[in-house]
Amino acid sequence: MDKPLKYAVFGAGSWATAIVKMLCENLDQVGWYMRSIYTKEHLIREQHNPNYLSSVEFNLDQLYLSNDINEMAQWADVLIFVIPSAFIHSELEKLTVDVSNKTVVSAVKGIVPETGLLLGEHFNQYYNVPFESIAVIAGPCHAEEVALERLSYLTISCWDSKKAQHIADSLSSNYINTKISDDVIGVEYGVMLKNIYAIAAGIAHGLGYGDNFQSILMSNAIREMKRFIKKVHKMKRNINNSAYLGDLLVTGYSTFSRNRMFGNMIGKGYTVKSAQMEMSMIAEGYYATKSAYLINQNNIKKANIPIIDAVYQVLYENKNPKKIFKQLTDKLD
Amino acid sequence: MDKPLKYAVFGAGSWATAIVKMLCENLDQVGWYMRSIYTKEHLIREQHNPNYLSSVEFNLDQLYLSNDINEMAQWADVLIFVIPSAFIHSELEKLTVDVSNKTVVSAVKGIVPETGLLLGEHFNQYYNVPFESIAVIAGPCHAEEVALERLSYLTISCWDSKKAQHIADSLSSNYINTKISDDVIGVEYGVMLKNIYAIAAGIAHGLGYGDNFQSILMSNAIREMKRFIKKVHKMKRNINNSAYLGDLLVTGYSTFSRNRMFGNMIGKGYTVKSAQMEMSMIAEGYYATKSAYLINQNNIKKANIPIIDAVYQVLYENKNPKKIFKQLTDKLD
Repeated sequence: MDKPLKYAVFGAGSWATAIVKMLCENLDQVGWYMRSIYTKEHLIREQHNPNYLSSVEFNLDQLYLSNDINEMAQWADVLIFVIPSAFIHSELEKLTVDVSNKTVVSAVKGIVPETGLLLGEHFNQYYNVPFESIAVIAGPCHAEEVALERLSYLTISCWDSKKAQHIADSLSSNYINTKISDDVIGVEYGVMLKNIYAIAAGIAHGLGYGDNFQSILMSNAIREMKRFIKKVHKMKRNINNSAYLGDLLVTGYSTFSRNRMFGNMIGKGYTVKSAQMEMSMIAEGYYATKSAYLINQNNIKKANIPIIDAVYQVLYENKNPKKIFKQLTDKLD
Repeated sequence: MDKPLKYAVFGAGSWATAIVKMLCENLDQVGWYMRSIYTKEHLIREQHNPNYLSSVEFNLDQLYLSNDINEMAQWADVLIFVIPSAFIHSELEKLTVDVSNKTVVSAVKGIVPETGLLLGEHFNQYYNVPFESIAVIAGPCHAEEVALERLSYLTISCWDSKKAQHIADSLSSNYINTKISDDVIGVEYGVMLKNIYAIAAGIAHGLGYGDNFQSILMSNAIREMKRFIKKVHKMKRNINNSAYLGDLLVTGYSTFSRNRMFGNMIGKGYTVKSAQMEMSMIAEGYYATKSAYLINQNNIKKANIPIIDAVYQVLYENKNPKKIFKQLTDKLD
């Protein structure tokens, strides 16, 4: 690597914890911002995150911990945001230091609900971060398997291939393979859309559809994703690369995915509100559904996105999932 | 439908039984050839197949049963072959009547091991059946879910779109959606290749790789399948259509797939022979691996097929799966 850039991770969920672990394989010091003072104190006392991936032990000498988002943003050169959609806006409202000369990396897996923007777009628009300094980390990667050091692959996208490679090198290890891409917008949309398809998979499962239909849903979803992304950002991309298809599959087939679980409850008859209450946390795909629907509505030439439309009708128009999915089955092939 | 063509199914496994069930939803009479006299007698006595999908009850008035392959081939206009690779050659050796004016449908999910030919090619070469009269049925479709009448989708491929549509109409019902395609060669190769990838998925699982790697494997597999098929039969096709990608996913993610189970045992340390003995039946993908490897070897311009190569080395060159898959991980992205 050219020079020792300082990396910081913002967030303390499972994916944030996994990314800190990956960085600790390579860097002498890793910044880690978390909102909760309790989490920070627990980490100092017990060397692990109390709430997520608690089997992962950290070496405190490597960590620079802070509860102050501005202090951390000031300190670091590369800022990796891994905060759930539900909290990202309120967290970013606290961020007042100038980050326009930093590299901002999105590992948010969703969209900023309040603005309907991808995190990269949000930082470009509100913090004057140029697009060359915005990157995205995409899987396919369950955090839990990083904790177990099971071989996983990441794609790091940035218009500036040197920056992408620097981030990739900082994350690579004997259990993490990385590749770089220049499709920062397409990959971030892919990461966001996959959560909607995971909700769709969950709804279908909750309604009693089987594995045959699940594979129909996934094979239609990847074609739909391709059409959607092409409309918002046309460029040459192979939608079957792991950042798009791989990430869709690991989420859509995971019975642990919060999005799939959320969909499953809806399919089984829970209302949106009761499913959200039951899960104590709102699935990323819930916001993504509305954003994706509206983005497509606002396109002059709309993409044909029957799966997103169906999920939108169920989640936001209170339509009967059984009826909507019956109609959907005739639109898939 | 134009005129009442007579359909016959050849085979008595789970997929054959499922296809007979689908046809019985539409046709007054369905021919059903099975080798075993016991199976036929049991069917007459108990109205269900003793060995597969035994929950499916048949109306005997609809069935024309026979243990004589030539009698059945003579009777029918549309011959649907659903015999496992392991037995197809010896079964076809009995077939002596002229079938050159019949429609021959492959639902074999593999290759004729003794000749290395797709079933369609075999009938073209040895029985003078023109390619316009050869069709292929592809999933994604677990037979078990047909038994449960869970919504499933089939693709019927034939150069003659009228024939494809006739077969599709004969299989369609309130739980079977069908579409037609003209890519009879590509679809049949896809059906064959997916079983190799299911073995690869099984080996990886047996070796301890997790869900993250599984999705990498599948996203690489569909790209590899595209490259392979393009070399043997170049035409415009969307590899993400359900006949290719959907079928790959339903097999590659199924823990019930014989091919995946077979691979899993290999990954866990069984020898090929002991895994085959343990399973009492040879997985289709075992033959497909050798055929696909040789087909690619014989191409002037070889496709890059690292997954098939890896499975070949493990199954046929007695190489250590752990070592071969470690090498494979560096070729995937």
